[in-house]
Amino acid sequence: MQALYLDHTLSLRDVPRPAPSAGEALVRVTLAGICNTDVELARGYMAFQGIPGHEFVGVVEAAPDPAWIGARVVGEINANCGECETCRAGRPTHCPHRTTLGIGGRDGAFAEYLTLPVHLLHRVPDSVSDEKAVFTEPLAAALEILQQVHLRATDRVIVLGDGKLGLLIAQTLALTGADVTAIGRHTGKLAILERRGIRTALNSEGVPPGADLVVEATGSVHGFRAARRLVRPRGTLVLKSTFAGDLAPLLAGDGLNLFSALVVDEITLVGSRCGPFEPALRLLAEDRVDVLSLVHACYPLAEALTAFEHAQRPAKLKVLLKPAGGADLRSAQSEHVGSPRRLLLRSPVCPHHAR
Amino acid sequence: MQALYLDHTLSLRDVPRPAPSAGEALVRVTLAGICNTDVELARGYMAFQGIPGHEFVGVVEAAPDPAWIGARVVGEINANCGECETCRAGRPTHCPHRTTLGIGGRDGAFAEYLTLPVHLLHRVPDSVSDEKAVFTEPLAAALEILQQVHLRATDRVIVLGDGKLGLLIAQTLALTGADVTAIGRHTGKLAILERRGIRTALNSEGVPPGADLVVEATGSVHGFRAARRLVRPRGTLVLKSTFAGDLAPLLAGDGLNLFSALVVDEITLVGSRCGPFEPALRLLAEDRVDVLSLVHACYPLAEALTAFEHAQRPAKLKVLLKPAGGADLRSAQSEHVGSPRRLLLRSPVCPHHAR
Repeated sequence: MQALYLDHTLSLRDVPRPAPSAGEALVRVTLAGICNTDVELARGYMAFQGIPGHEFVGVVEAAPDPAWIGARVVGEINANCGECETCRAGRPTHCPHRTTLGIGGRDGAFAEYLTLPVHLLHRVPDSVSDEKAVFTEPLAAALEILQQVHLRATDRVIVLGDGKLGLLIAQTLALTGADVTAIGRHTGKLAILERRGIRTALNSEGVPPGADLVVEATGSVHGFRAARRLVRPRGTLVLKSTFAGDLAPLLAGDGLNLFSALVVDEITLVGSRCGPFEPALRLLAEDRVDVLSLVHACYPLAEALTAFEHAQRPAKLKVLLKPAGGADLRSAQSEHVGSPRRLLLRSPVCPHHAR
Repeated sequence: MQALYLDHTLSLRDVPRPAPSAGEALVRVTLAGICNTDVELARGYMAFQGIPGHEFVGVVEAAPDPAWIGARVVGEINANCGECETCRAGRPTHCPHRTTLGIGGRDGAFAEYLTLPVHLLHRVPDSVSDEKAVFTEPLAAALEILQQVHLRATDRVIVLGDGKLGLLIAQTLALTGADVTAIGRHTGKLAILERRGIRTALNSEGVPPGADLVVEATGSVHGFRAARRLVRPRGTLVLKSTFAGDLAPLLAGDGLNLFSALVVDEITLVGSRCGPFEPALRLLAEDRVDVLSLVHACYPLAEALTAFEHAQRPAKLKVLLKPAGGADLRSAQSEHVGSPRRLLLRSPVCPHHAR
């Protein structure tokens, strides 16, 4: 099968179709999304070697239980052992023996097929198109914040960063009724939130500090500093981005005594990663989050290298990859005919689509 | 009156007795404790100028409501405005307009008298001696952890640091039924905990990682690194020490990508400072925390400079100061006669007492 392979550099390769191990399903990938983590992997993060890609939707072609065969699915990315203390304590995404789809120890979704333990699969409701379903994983990651932090509807929230994850976070937090302001750098991206009635700002200067919850989704020193300034004493600062470099040395030397400041103001700093899939699918099925506006382009897998270049452009949002074999048009045909962006899945191999 | 005064350096001075402002009481200090923060202040922390000292017990000599006069009291240290948004939101210890007793904008307890708003005073139960009551403030700070973090009796807890605060924290957390291990560097200090049935260790090497809650009370880079290593994924790391320098640059260059590690393991980092006085007084009245074993010495205020030197010795614990005017022996006479350490308050000016 065709696959994008990372071995210090990215290249397209013809590799054997993967054989599912015990308890695993074989999934034909119909659509996959390029995440910033994939870009970081290509730059050396995690020293990953293999097929990247962890955001996908596909169709089960083989599984131990035949009831799965033909099911349209998304899949959680942390393949846990199910037996260790961490798994038994209900924290499978932190299993120390886990492999992670397309990130660590397990080939991922930028290929015609992938394998994944069946217990990680989730059926996609018919009302959710492939183009929406491919956002399940990042939307679940956005929802993880509410798994960790008790957000009150009376709280004031600031989300820093108008990348894909930032836009999903702002939308999910606003669903609680909390007073959300998103701060970003791109008018076009912020407009997606403004259409949902979410307040936005192009920089943090005019935004009043004292927020109950601040989410750092820029992954930059600048964003972290702004977050620290904007959160109130006893407030919560959620770190939602991994950082390719370490912030610690970058934060030095500017008089910011970070740790003492956290103590004096009793700030709670929460690291946040992967989240729950079922609520994400419910929000997609109920159309409560606009994910389609986040799609900036779709490339056939054969043009994955070009797609990766696209995904690194400054103002880009989500770039999708469509394996050539995946001519499953059910979802694309079922909705939104007439919107230009919706057309991108109407041919077996989606046309280049950039804006 | 006699007072210890900090103006770049510490010196004993004769200063006017303070005059209470509206809403304030005049308190005659009977006993005060030297905290590590005082040592840091003397080294330049907070650029404080004035009379340091924030751990005290005393007797009210003047107050707007005469019912307070003659009352034996301890006092909260954050003098808040009571009117701003932060105060009205129930976070008076974070009032941006606050002064802090002996730490910022307000003279403190290393003097014969101090003034403090009456609403910050707490009556000391008769059963609590001065020598115990002087620990109310640091014991409240230890209890602040349980105000911020939901600790379960089934949790495993590690406390790093066997200084005064670390010993109080380990004792209060152990009262919950949680499985507590305290890690320190001084056999003599750890013995105080072992007598209470709390597990101790002289270094972190043999202590299994994966703790639900780790409290960093060393204020050192070494302690922070150990804390990060010992806490489980999705666990909580409480920062209980302010740091004279910033940890951030010190953490650089050793391959510890601190912030990404917090995200990947979804660690919650909680800064923790001042806590509630009434529960601290209850625990002291019920004799549930051993504070007397923490007293290493008591000096008359006239020998405060020697006391400060003593407080900076490596293996020291609490060093107390007793103003000459404070000949209130009620508490000292009421208990523990026969224990050598208990004798230290039995003369009007406590004798030097070191071990």
